[in-house]
Amino acid sequence: MDFYEVIRTRRSMRSFKPDPVPEEVLRRVLDAARIAPSGSNRQPWKFILVREKGLKDELVPLAGGQKFIAEAPIVVVACGIDIRHNRGGYMGDMSMLVDVAIAFDHLTLAARAEGLGTCWIGSFDNNGIKDLLKIPQDANVVALTPLGYPRGVFAEPGPRKGLKEIVSEGSFA
Amino acid sequence: MDFYEVIRTRRSMRSFKPDPVPEEVLRRVLDAARIAPSGSNRQPWKFILVREKGLKDELVPLAGGQKFIAEAPIVVVACGIDIRHNRGGYMGDMSMLVDVAIAFDHLTLAARAEGLGTCWIGSFDNNGIKDLLKIPQDANVVALTPLGYPRGVFAEPGPRKGLKEIVSEGSFA
Repeated sequence: MDFYEVIRTRRSMRSFKPDPVPEEVLRRVLDAARIAPSGSNRQPWKFILVREKGLKDELVPLAGGQKFIAEAPIVVVACGIDIRHNRGGYMGDMSMLVDVAIAFDHLTLAARAEGLGTCWIGSFDNNGIKDLLKIPQDANVVALTPLGYPRGVFAEPGPRKGLKEIVSEGSFA
Repeated sequence: MDFYEVIRTRRSMRSFKPDPVPEEVLRRVLDAARIAPSGSNRQPWKFILVREKGLKDELVPLAGGQKFIAEAPIVVVACGIDIRHNRGGYMGDMSMLVDVAIAFDHLTLAARAEGLGTCWIGSFDNNGIKDLLKIPQDANVVALTPLGYPRGVFAEPGPRKGLKEIVSEGSFA
């Protein structure tokens, strides 16, 4: 699919068919995340695939009670590994958030290119998911998404600010 | 350009031709960032275009002394606006980092689709750039990149971990 078509047609999908995702399709989607850039090429990420129904159901209350998460055949949980050698700056250890967001953006866009739906979830119970999925102390959840063939029509995107509001020349104002 | 070709051929480019970026091309690249998803559709971002030579030169020491930054006709400085109504969780106000990273990833990928080069810079003097570009108290720099037509050949990408190392089933381990 053309690059601009992918980004123009990506939507948050909240209803999924039970149809499985073929392994070669899943591999291409995960590989898009794998080759993403990261600060100093640290690749501080891990993607946990949750396919077992009981485990998906346990994720629902840990992700705001959004039941459609468990409808999809796969839930992908993106974890960021704390950076030990961060070079300071106001981000500190949080710069792994930027790296994992880049890789997860690649993953969600690749899913769209494959006709799959995702819904980027950034509000969740980090400690609850860490317990459920045995995520170690030095790693944290950055985002999760259901991954599967979407059901229903693509909604209109949410309204966006205009370019004049988000772009400036030479200074912030 | 095909989506997968964009992500497979994106590289950090560190040498630029002085050729200007046509305004319609720049507009498409910025629009790719504009339509990016963000938590609760907050769009907590602003992109400052730095084209004036004196200002670009002043950015160099604030971004690790990397002189190639000022070679490009444009430097894009991505700012994140602090989230006042964050819903808690370990990210706190830092969740704007995730949103800005998504939009900036769209921007750098769109640049590749247009034949432009970028180099995502995540290590910089946040307060120094804030002073230089009159960025207000409640906003911070998340990343910057030179933007222009690259000079020279595309290098090989840095080595990446294999899928087996970054993907797991049902739990982190």
